[in-house]
Amino acid sequence: MQTSLLDRLFDSGLLIDTGVEGLYGRSGAFEDVIARFERLVDTYGGADGAEAMRFPPGMNRAHFETSGYMKSFPQLAGTVHSFCGGELDHMSLLQCMEVEGDWTKDQKATDIVLTPAACYPLYPTIAKRGRLPAGGGLYDLQSYCFRHEPSNDPARQQLFRMREYVCMGTQEHVTTFRQTWMDRGLEMMAKVGLDVTIDVANDPFFGRAGRMLANNQRDQNLKFELLIPVTSTAKPTACMSFNYHQDAFGAKWGLNLENGDVAHTACVGFGLERIALALFARHGLDIAAWPTDVRNVLGYQD
Amino acid sequence: MQTSLLDRLFDSGLLIDTGVEGLYGRSGAFEDVIARFERLVDTYGGADGAEAMRFPPGMNRAHFETSGYMKSFPQLAGTVHSFCGGELDHMSLLQCMEVEGDWTKDQKATDIVLTPAACYPLYPTIAKRGRLPAGGGLYDLQSYCFRHEPSNDPARQQLFRMREYVCMGTQEHVTTFRQTWMDRGLEMMAKVGLDVTIDVANDPFFGRAGRMLANNQRDQNLKFELLIPVTSTAKPTACMSFNYHQDAFGAKWGLNLENGDVAHTACVGFGLERIALALFARHGLDIAAWPTDVRNVLGYQD
Repeated sequence: MQTSLLDRLFDSGLLIDTGVEGLYGRSGAFEDVIARFERLVDTYGGADGAEAMRFPPGMNRAHFETSGYMKSFPQLAGTVHSFCGGELDHMSLLQCMEVEGDWTKDQKATDIVLTPAACYPLYPTIAKRGRLPAGGGLYDLQSYCFRHEPSNDPARQQLFRMREYVCMGTQEHVTTFRQTWMDRGLEMMAKVGLDVTIDVANDPFFGRAGRMLANNQRDQNLKFELLIPVTSTAKPTACMSFNYHQDAFGAKWGLNLENGDVAHTACVGFGLERIALALFARHGLDIAAWPTDVRNVLGYQD
Repeated sequence: MQTSLLDRLFDSGLLIDTGVEGLYGRSGAFEDVIARFERLVDTYGGADGAEAMRFPPGMNRAHFETSGYMKSFPQLAGTVHSFCGGELDHMSLLQCMEVEGDWTKDQKATDIVLTPAACYPLYPTIAKRGRLPAGGGLYDLQSYCFRHEPSNDPARQQLFRMREYVCMGTQEHVTTFRQTWMDRGLEMMAKVGLDVTIDVANDPFFGRAGRMLANNQRDQNLKFELLIPVTSTAKPTACMSFNYHQDAFGAKWGLNLENGDVAHTACVGFGLERIALALFARHGLDIAAWPTDVRNVLGYQD
């Protein structure tokens, strides 16, 4: 019987089992692959003059509520809760833990929700600045993101990093941005020896109403994904996404162009763990044995 | 009236207001200071042969429960909760959000808790490997950590990064490790032009029972802190800590030396945001105007 990729990653130490599906530690070598791939991203995006911002893995709950995420993907979100009681409550809590009861039931929601995608904290930040500058806005983001979807597919992690560029401007401006990154994505992945296809996205919108949202997203070609084999060649994994929001985020957050028009927005995202896993799946777990041209592109010194 | 450091950090764009106290975005320049300081840490710790591991900002709840954190600091912990209902529950949830009710009350605890300190996921990971190798173990960690303590002190953030080295071995081995890093910490901070003092730690143990734990920690000199002025010279901020756990973690997690004895453990932690803030407070918000020797140590090119 073939050993699964996840087990091989555990055995090699590249990923570290925490006992929770989709929650893994990373070895120094795994982290290094991600850092090197991000530097490759920088060589493509660096000259565009994006403003770099790094938000922590949690965001303002009020902004999360405004985003509408709970309408589309309630099952994936993670709210952060804390103990807010006094000393007697604390004694009850410890007694509850002692007998292995559900001590979490009295935890109270804090003002923080785990970030579902790196760009979520950006929109309210930019809206607060007032109108966009002439020429629109371009932002460079990266953060850990959370999706509550326990799985033994190593490419489906509950906590993972997403690198993003977000563009705000006219329809033409942001759709050109999106096309540019689709071209760049294909070129980058070819350079690191990965086989890719591009397809319309298939997001896991929740419930029956969600099926309509999914159909709408597909029919309007609003979101594309760059797919690369990780655990399966027949079912490749979305490792990049290219998302045109029309003026939906502009209207929701009050993002306006210099002339007052509602801004259109688009974002391009890299699933950094997925890309690293695609590299390991394609070239093997021993980085020193990766093809020389791939090693060179990633800056490994031979 | 003097503008607070936090407001000056917001105005300069180094920190980004998210609307939640203690939850901030960082500019590219702020991140770069942290990256450069970490490289300085590497120049001190790099030759020791520590095994690098990077855990995500959340950990296995079962391990968190075993850690005993809820006994000492229940008020600081953050549990991650998700929506686990069906379509009807989802409709109720959206209706609740519509009327601005408490939609979070039906969220259910997941298997994940936010990491309170970078080393928490390490102990069960090492215990699972069996006995420590001869010469003990040395590990290099960094992660985002969560502490639920909203504050307008920029040095008290709810989500911040901690770099750590953890040593496991005999009492002599790990206390020598701790002393080495106290010496290194003093030297590093002097090199980057920061005024430091070292004192016994003053952790915010919860409640009346917690006061005993705090007294015990102080009386036994188990934890020291390296204090640097950030918002106040009179009340400097703990930017590094040096923690000797005796054999408490060894016994709790089943960490054993090669000869079967229970391992002693110690850890040294860098509060990366706090150190960056101390640098900005001391040398000003314009990195280009920092003293040349400090810029050189951090690898800025003039």
